Amino acid sequence: MHKLNEIIENSFISKLAEMFPRSRHQCNLLHESDAELIHLPGTDIILAVKTDSIVEEIQSGLYSDPYLIGWMTVTVNASDLAAVGAEPLGLLLNETLPPDIDRDYLKKLQEGIRDACEQYGFYVLGGDTNFSNAMQMGAAAIGIIPSGKLMTRMGGRCDDLLFASGPLGLGSAFALLGYLGDSKANKDSMNYKPVARIKEGLLLREYASCCMDTSDGALATLDQLMRLNNIGFEINVPMEDLLDPAVLKIAGRYNLPPWIFLAGPHGEFELIFSIPPVKLDEFLLEAGRISWTPIQIGRVDGKPEVRIINERVKAILPTGKIRNLFDEVNQDAEQYLKNLLMIDKEIAAN
Amino acid sequence: MHKLNEIIENSFISKLAEMFPRSRHQCNLLHESDAELIHLPGTDIILAVKTDSIVEEIQSGLYSDPYLIGWMTVTVNASDLAAVGAEPLGLLLNETLPPDIDRDYLKKLQEGIRDACEQYGFYVLGGDTNFSNAMQMGAAAIGIIPSGKLMTRMGGRCDDLLFASGPLGLGSAFALLGYLGDSKANKDSMNYKPVARIKEGLLLREYASCCMDTSDGALATLDQLMRLNNIGFEINVPMEDLLDPAVLKIAGRYNLPPWIFLAGPHGEFELIFSIPPVKLDEFLLEAGRISWTPIQIGRVDGKPEVRIINERVKAILPTGKIRNLFDEVNQDAEQYLKNLLMIDKEIAAN
Repeated sequence: MHKLNEIIENSFISKLAEMFPRSRHQCNLLHESDAELIHLPGTDIILAVKTDSIVEEIQSGLYSDPYLIGWMTVTVNASDLAAVGAEPLGLLLNETLPPDIDRDYLKKLQEGIRDACEQYGFYVLGGDTNFSNAMQMGAAAIGIIPSGKLMTRMGGRCDDLLFASGPLGLGSAFALLGYLGDSKANKDSMNYKPVARIKEGLLLREYASCCMDTSDGALATLDQLMRLNNIGFEINVPMEDLLDPAVLKIAGRYNLPPWIFLAGPHGEFELIFSIPPVKLDEFLLEAGRISWTPIQIGRVDGKPEVRIINERVKAILPTGKIRNLFDEVNQDAEQYLKNLLMIDKEIAAN
Repeated sequence: MHKLNEIIENSFISKLAEMFPRSRHQCNLLHESDAELIHLPGTDIILAVKTDSIVEEIQSGLYSDPYLIGWMTVTVNASDLAAVGAEPLGLLLNETLPPDIDRDYLKKLQEGIRDACEQYGFYVLGGDTNFSNAMQMGAAAIGIIPSGKLMTRMGGRCDDLLFASGPLGLGSAFALLGYLGDSKANKDSMNYKPVARIKEGLLLREYASCCMDTSDGALATLDQLMRLNNIGFEINVPMEDLLDPAVLKIAGRYNLPPWIFLAGPHGEFELIFSIPPVKLDEFLLEAGRISWTPIQIGRVDGKPEVRIINERVKAILPTGKIRNLFDEVNQDAEQYLKNLLMIDKEIAAN
């Protein structure tokens, strides 16, 4: 766990958890999967459970549209269930609402929740509502996995092929536009509305060696998978294949190096996973059957680093440093961007 | 549902939920049980799931001791699982912590969580931590019930015997001391640390007609059970049997009518339940075997009202009015107490 704890967030989570004994029914160790996996005694069923709250994004103003807040409350949890290949059962809501909440605002919030649930096959089972001027929204999601179908962050192997479930970078682009003062209107015009990859996750549990969502940005995902599995990743596709076209446009408009849109820490809720070469053809065939085109972004090797090699960048990315950066600048978005651009210069110089 | 929605809180919950379709696997309707009950497809298992957050109690300063906050984060959820007779499986934590949280404060918070989990047989499965100056703590608890053992708020019958799992009033007494300025030190000297009735709930699912915890105060519980089942309750024991001795002392010291310590809305996390007379002897025998002395506080009849008849009070309590009072005075504790005392005068005059 030494390498894992070089990352501030991992270290903090380890610290929080160290006092708590673990259930003998739990199939995953700390950090090892996007959702908690619990073998249900006396059955062949694994419960996948996860809770995630939206706090900083609301209180900083990054999420201001109530429909988006409702949608994301479900999506952030659904995405973690997708990453373990769970079939959605239901969710519980934790709403902390302003005491003077506007009726129309509340309606849109609930509509976002309802539509996301419908999208993923979730049902709202219940919830708890409290009041505070510091609004936050959370949920706990429950899904089901048959025994023998466990998919976690563990198991990535040398020579696996590296995939993303879709184009990357939209989460970072949205945050960038949201946090840089003059571009707020642009943020809203992006129509940021990520869709958790539930049906893709159900397929992936048959094929993937390891899987994790990009809720904290793609580089954080790759870095975590690298540390957990002691493997490395070579990303070897053109930026046009890796990033969403909207992201490339924004990179151009603000004259920013495209790779930094992989840096997060606000992600796009895609899945990153690896597939053994022997399963590739069947996987792609089955993906086609559900009208899904996963993007092969590179390959897995035995050297624990994240390399990016294409027409614009040839570099080993300092992913650990990048992951810690947002915390180290006390979540100051402008300073964060400045430091990212300094890292870009260092990369270019090497 | 007309009568249920006379209560502001019920009406708000109904409104929040009306947009969401219900899962066909869910065994309880809205308002009908303390935890959500989900039949797990392909098994004989009912999952009991519940989420509850502690927001107002922390932000108002009523809960200031970090150990108590940690303890209560688990207990409020465990109590709802107890009320449906579920066996604890595990829980997920939602911690929203101040960015500058003190290391020792955090340690005590976690110790409270750990000790409560140990008390109830829960395991922390995972969680989510966020940062905000508006601290709040929540959890989602998961428990298991075998098919055929459902216990809900529904099913209370005329001629059942009415029970509380233990003496009542400590929750109200704690809140009273906490909110009335000059008595803060007294609040802390109370050692308020309610214990959810998990093992009692496991026994009750074999005997009780209906069950609900007193998390919002005993009168709120009785009022809700009355509305749901269209039954009435006659409380016919002396105040000394009904209330905790510490509560009677506080009532004496502040010259307050003892019954108002049943009014909540901050409860003591006991269970209120009814037992059919034919099961009484066996129930009491089994209760004795787990060293538990439930308190028979009255009986169930067919007239939907809550009556209290003992040496100090002979009255029909306006439980609906009392439940709505805290919201109607905008959660102003002093005004709430004044209005409660006015209700006491009205009762005495009748």
